[in-house]
Amino acid sequence: MGAQTEYDPEADASDLDALSRKFQKELNAGLVALVLLAVLDQAGEDLYGYQIAKRLQHQAGEGTFVKQGALYPVLRNLSAAGLLSSRVVPSYSGPPRRYYGITPTGRRTLAQWRDIWSGTRDFVNQFIETTGERS
Amino acid sequence: MGAQTEYDPEADASDLDALSRKFQKELNAGLVALVLLAVLDQAGEDLYGYQIAKRLQHQAGEGTFVKQGALYPVLRNLSAAGLLSSRVVPSYSGPPRRYYGITPTGRRTLAQWRDIWSGTRDFVNQFIETTGERS
Repeated sequence: MGAQTEYDPEADASDLDALSRKFQKELNAGLVALVLLAVLDQAGEDLYGYQIAKRLQHQAGEGTFVKQGALYPVLRNLSAAGLLSSRVVPSYSGPPRRYYGITPTGRRTLAQWRDIWSGTRDFVNQFIETTGERS
Repeated sequence: MGAQTEYDPEADASDLDALSRKFQKELNAGLVALVLLAVLDQAGEDLYGYQIAKRLQHQAGEGTFVKQGALYPVLRNLSAAGLLSSRVVPSYSGPPRRYYGITPTGRRTLAQWRDIWSGTRDFVNQFIETTGERS
């Protein structure tokens, strides 16, 4: 019954999980796009979806930040906004692959988003790091 | 014409700004709620909107993470979800004030969101800190 572990019999664990899924989803809405731009900026070459997913997975380790299927709509949106260019390349081993590369507009957007991210992150950290336990 | 400052004559600065406003808005969608929960958890007493806004402003310094008017819908949503309780108190100097306090469910949600935030933040930082210039 300590402050960190108290349980309220009225609370429904599934409600709590639903709220947390919603929170993660809202966070991901912008951040998946940010990470995809950063990965393609860093890559120095065009990549197709599976290659991008593997780079995310490699960094995420056991964490599941975002599933591969969730990347494709974001890649399409970034292309539609002119931040990525894409081209389809035939593959010997299966269906043709769509390769994505970052455009000059994508690079400038990435620079702006990086600033927004670091400013917002530092602001939030002021409240989060001082209120909680360190784990 | 260096890599960080190249300009594409085709790009429209207002498009770029619109994309960045959208990115900030998506980030804020979840994070404003997280920060409000953290502030009320830390406060140890109920606070009304203006007091909460002042605490955010104090931390934000010159930055404008979120405007005061944007807090009220989030406070209402958190109350509707049972994460905050609220009560109206008459004021001598103006209209009645609605005070907000964090509920036990709000505290447990905050603990989950804090974990989600730190996991997501650390994941994103891996891509952002290694790709960019250090400023």
